[in-house]
Amino acid sequence: MQAEIITIGDEILIGQIVDTNSAFLGKEFNKIGISIYQITSVQDDKAHIIKALQEAESNADIIIITGGLGPTKDDITKHTICEYFNDTLVENKDVLAHVEHLFSKYISTPISDLNRQQALVPSKSKVLTNRFGTAPGMWLEKNGKVFVSLPGVPYEMKALITHEVIPALRHKFEFPYIRHKTMLTYGLGESAIANRIEAWEEALPDHIKLAYLPSLGRVRLRLSGKSRDKISLETDIEKQIASLLPQIEDIFIGFEENGSIETLIGNQLSKRGKTLSIAESCTGGKIAQSITSKAGASKYFKGSIVSYATETKVNVLGVSPTDVKSHSVVSKEVAEAMAKNVRKLFNTDYAISTTGNAGPLKGDSNAEVGTVWIAIATENEVYAEVFNFGNHRDKVITKATNKAFEMFQKEIFKK
Amino acid sequence: MQAEIITIGDEILIGQIVDTNSAFLGKEFNKIGISIYQITSVQDDKAHIIKALQEAESNADIIIITGGLGPTKDDITKHTICEYFNDTLVENKDVLAHVEHLFSKYISTPISDLNRQQALVPSKSKVLTNRFGTAPGMWLEKNGKVFVSLPGVPYEMKALITHEVIPALRHKFEFPYIRHKTMLTYGLGESAIANRIEAWEEALPDHIKLAYLPSLGRVRLRLSGKSRDKISLETDIEKQIASLLPQIEDIFIGFEENGSIETLIGNQLSKRGKTLSIAESCTGGKIAQSITSKAGASKYFKGSIVSYATETKVNVLGVSPTDVKSHSVVSKEVAEAMAKNVRKLFNTDYAISTTGNAGPLKGDSNAEVGTVWIAIATENEVYAEVFNFGNHRDKVITKATNKAFEMFQKEIFKK
Repeated sequence: MQAEIITIGDEILIGQIVDTNSAFLGKEFNKIGISIYQITSVQDDKAHIIKALQEAESNADIIIITGGLGPTKDDITKHTICEYFNDTLVENKDVLAHVEHLFSKYISTPISDLNRQQALVPSKSKVLTNRFGTAPGMWLEKNGKVFVSLPGVPYEMKALITHEVIPALRHKFEFPYIRHKTMLTYGLGESAIANRIEAWEEALPDHIKLAYLPSLGRVRLRLSGKSRDKISLETDIEKQIASLLPQIEDIFIGFEENGSIETLIGNQLSKRGKTLSIAESCTGGKIAQSITSKAGASKYFKGSIVSYATETKVNVLGVSPTDVKSHSVVSKEVAEAMAKNVRKLFNTDYAISTTGNAGPLKGDSNAEVGTVWIAIATENEVYAEVFNFGNHRDKVITKATNKAFEMFQKEIFKK
Repeated sequence: MQAEIITIGDEILIGQIVDTNSAFLGKEFNKIGISIYQITSVQDDKAHIIKALQEAESNADIIIITGGLGPTKDDITKHTICEYFNDTLVENKDVLAHVEHLFSKYISTPISDLNRQQALVPSKSKVLTNRFGTAPGMWLEKNGKVFVSLPGVPYEMKALITHEVIPALRHKFEFPYIRHKTMLTYGLGESAIANRIEAWEEALPDHIKLAYLPSLGRVRLRLSGKSRDKISLETDIEKQIASLLPQIEDIFIGFEENGSIETLIGNQLSKRGKTLSIAESCTGGKIAQSITSKAGASKYFKGSIVSYATETKVNVLGVSPTDVKSHSVVSKEVAEAMAKNVRKLFNTDYAISTTGNAGPLKGDSNAEVGTVWIAIATENEVYAEVFNFGNHRDKVITKATNKAFEMFQKEIFKK
């Protein structure tokens, strides 16, 4: 079973927005055994959209179209779909009532004719209710193929996929059994891992594939299999994993299917009834933001101090000015003091700290660009490690954040 | 002049990574007058890649290919390009020396045969030096069309585009003059703006186009024109803007070409020699992270306290427990106290605070999910506003962050 994604909108092609929808769609569809054959992003242009629909129809069984459903003149998806299906637009009473409800609840301005047009849908379509916005999803069929048009706003599209589209696809089609198992590893590069596990990889059976998914200090190893025979596939995959794990024991931190490292850390802290605080310098709030992006973080995360200025490290975090002077602000001593002090200040069981220079220029320290000290404080000890994450600002910030999670994960799981 | 982007990699189609490269490419190419006709994401599959290359060659003058250049077995772009160009791979001494340099500087493991293969390039290609990684860029030509293959790692690809590809394209082609002017607006929805400026929009000349680019509380209005006559185009666009601005005066905050709102705020603070601190609750570090993602933020940003737990608001930020008890932790009183106290604690001219409930469940307050108080403290006053940002966690966090910037921007520019 193959699907294609067509994302519509000049704003994608001129780079004003990043298409995050396709990744979400790819992930959700893969889970139920639908492969994405291709993702095509096209302009708000009738001829171009129709050409893309034709090509997708010839490649795939399911065609997901996102975007171009806004109330303004440049959004032409709905009219183009009507043309493709030889259909006309009709007003849908339920959608109109929903638009009126959203306006009365969240928006002070009165509903306009443009907003009212959101309730127009192709007469042949089945409406999928968009709880979070005014543009409805639309389901159409042609020669046994399914076309679904969805709004481009990510959280609206996501809710429609989860609550409407996937259940309807499961109802209509029978899917093969698919199994992914993704191992999170830290601390070794893609090619070093490939070298180490070469013999194992060469010996993989044909129906099981390995993919390397590297990103800044983390490499995810994903084993995938697809089959009609659920039990033998399960067994085969588990067998391969049992033979791989001893070879990557030192870098393996868990299975992604059990959650991201933020989730693994959060669950472990919750389970043990422990709490965490953070003092961030060069990472600028990214560690706190990653933790709080998970609902429920308030159970174990008490807070963070982003001590961006050196004087904040001294005045708010109580780092000793002598340490700053004699060791510089990017040093083991300052990192350890930050972790120790924030742990006390927030009264938590653990604390993490970062201090470094993300570049592009040297700051209040002579440390080379890319140098980052990361410290962990516990009830019993405080320790720090130094890294050089290269000379690109975004990379340094992200690598330091990833490394901090890696060190902390080791602390709470392995010790 | 048209370009197409082909992004290669199973990891894109299975949704393991979000393709941020295409947006960057779209933006940079648009600046010099190259439109992106289509973005196509395909699997690590030789036949599929070749089909995409053929289609792109028939649509566009410039074909940019990203991804599939890693050292492992699943990366087949280089071999496939060789086949498409009837070429063979040869070792490039400069690339090999560069790979060896990177390994000796940043990586402790010795260079392997896999890494050494990064120095193999098609014999007909011109090598583009990748300063930040081991996979070189490759420039090939065929029937007057340009093919550029680049690594998929975003910061490597970006540096190659900026320092190698764009200069080489400018050298090879002559581009028309293109002019974008993007107005940042806050506080009014897409359709409300469209209604208000309908007459102006209808009267736009054919060679100037308007696009609405909405995202969570912000709408960007982008005027674009393309012409061989630079001076008349400039004049036409300026004329249109002069007639539009008075109609959107209350929601207009600046031109994007002068920088994002974070940059506008940073520049204004720097210029006036003023400093900022932040106390974040429901936004969890996102405001601090947005500010510190810009290099040079240390000039005006002293730091932030992410007071996620109620006890942190009391113990670290000094919010009165009586206020928390009588008004709840999501209240005007707590928001104002957070802003006032963090401003004092960090000794800054301004402070911003947020306290709210991002959901999905109610926290330490009975406030409805989506309720957020945002406060601004200055030398002379402290004030707060309340908002309801709906019932989706990511949306609430992002809208609250955007609204905080909007309020602060008004404070430092309009008062």
